[in-house]
Amino acid sequence: MARPLLQVALDHSDLQGAIKAAVSVGHEVDVIEAGTVCLLQVGSELVEVLRSLFPEKIIVADTKCADAGGTVAKNNAVRGADWMTCICSATIPTMKAALKAIKEVRGDRGEIQVELYGDWTYEQAQQWLDAGISQAIYHQSRDALLAGETWGEKDLNKVKKLIEMGFRVSVTGGLSTETLKLFKGVDVFTFIAGRGITEAADPAQAARDFKAEIAKYWAE
Amino acid sequence: MARPLLQVALDHSDLQGAIKAAVSVGHEVDVIEAGTVCLLQVGSELVEVLRSLFPEKIIVADTKCADAGGTVAKNNAVRGADWMTCICSATIPTMKAALKAIKEVRGDRGEIQVELYGDWTYEQAQQWLDAGISQAIYHQSRDALLAGETWGEKDLNKVKKLIEMGFRVSVTGGLSTETLKLFKGVDVFTFIAGRGITEAADPAQAARDFKAEIAKYWAE
Repeated sequence: MARPLLQVALDHSDLQGAIKAAVSVGHEVDVIEAGTVCLLQVGSELVEVLRSLFPEKIIVADTKCADAGGTVAKNNAVRGADWMTCICSATIPTMKAALKAIKEVRGDRGEIQVELYGDWTYEQAQQWLDAGISQAIYHQSRDALLAGETWGEKDLNKVKKLIEMGFRVSVTGGLSTETLKLFKGVDVFTFIAGRGITEAADPAQAARDFKAEIAKYWAE
Repeated sequence: MARPLLQVALDHSDLQGAIKAAVSVGHEVDVIEAGTVCLLQVGSELVEVLRSLFPEKIIVADTKCADAGGTVAKNNAVRGADWMTCICSATIPTMKAALKAIKEVRGDRGEIQVELYGDWTYEQAQQWLDAGISQAIYHQSRDALLAGETWGEKDLNKVKKLIEMGFRVSVTGGLSTETLKLFKGVDVFTFIAGRGITEAADPAQAARDFKAEIAKYWAE
């Protein structure tokens, strides 16, 4: 079981805020995410700025792409995105087109992640694998969290099942240094945190705290 | 049965192209859509430009919002969007948050449209209605169309059923003046066309052709 990566999500509504957060914490994490809210607000220029600031890091464009996969993937890949997300309700042709486009620009580094929202089935998940999609993101929706839901056994079992199927699985949604231990013994690929890091008094220290907590439960 | 509206989707990957297309055709249509590809590429500035150019038209931000509904809706509403789309796999709390936010800024003019992709159920559709969502967009995915699928009886029956349930239903995906007649007798709320209008030799004429074809089959 490899040690999970740490990804910071930049969920700002302005370019300046996102960049400031990235600069404050980018060197402490493994993966830097241009969040959906920010992409919809300022466009893929954010991806380009992140690529230029962090040439060695994995950059994710969290487009939650639902259609026109080839165009969206190309637009983000040429600005430096290694990974891009597709929403689970996108069709298989959309996912395939996105995968092809991101690999054309980024080579083997280019990957598509399926973002799991609402209802989806393991039958669909198998179709994603068959289409060459290797990553899934298991999500507690921010709005669902605000409505009082939290991580439970049900979620962990779904994450484990996806891992057994062959996905590298990222988990996200309301994660804190306290909730990471819930995943002990689970081969999580990446933990994604947003405000839990970027809105901490000392974001770099918050990222180091996440990494230390991960190191407690997962060997190198 | 009211005559369906005509909506033009600006699916460009650059602000200049989208604005040029909007200027060429905006006055001929009822609804102008800031497309997802363009929003992800240039941000909601596109919405602001469209609002300033067409103060009387309905402006849609096709965000296909999957999460953080309140934030995304507010971001787009303050720049002038009347309607905003949520992807069908968004949770009910996301849709409710989006609806609340867009109405706070745009008043009764503010509406959320659920964009139907992949698998969804009528049980979910009833939940959207119960949450106060009044519009649905029935979609032939661009990538699915490229893969050879087209409009059929199955699609028409789904559109009719959604209308019976109480949705105002927009239809989109590969529409042309030739395919509009397939919907004859169906109480479609809005026909959405993209390249079928914007990439015509004379986009304004193409829009007028669409409107003339609509007028043939639906009385005023």
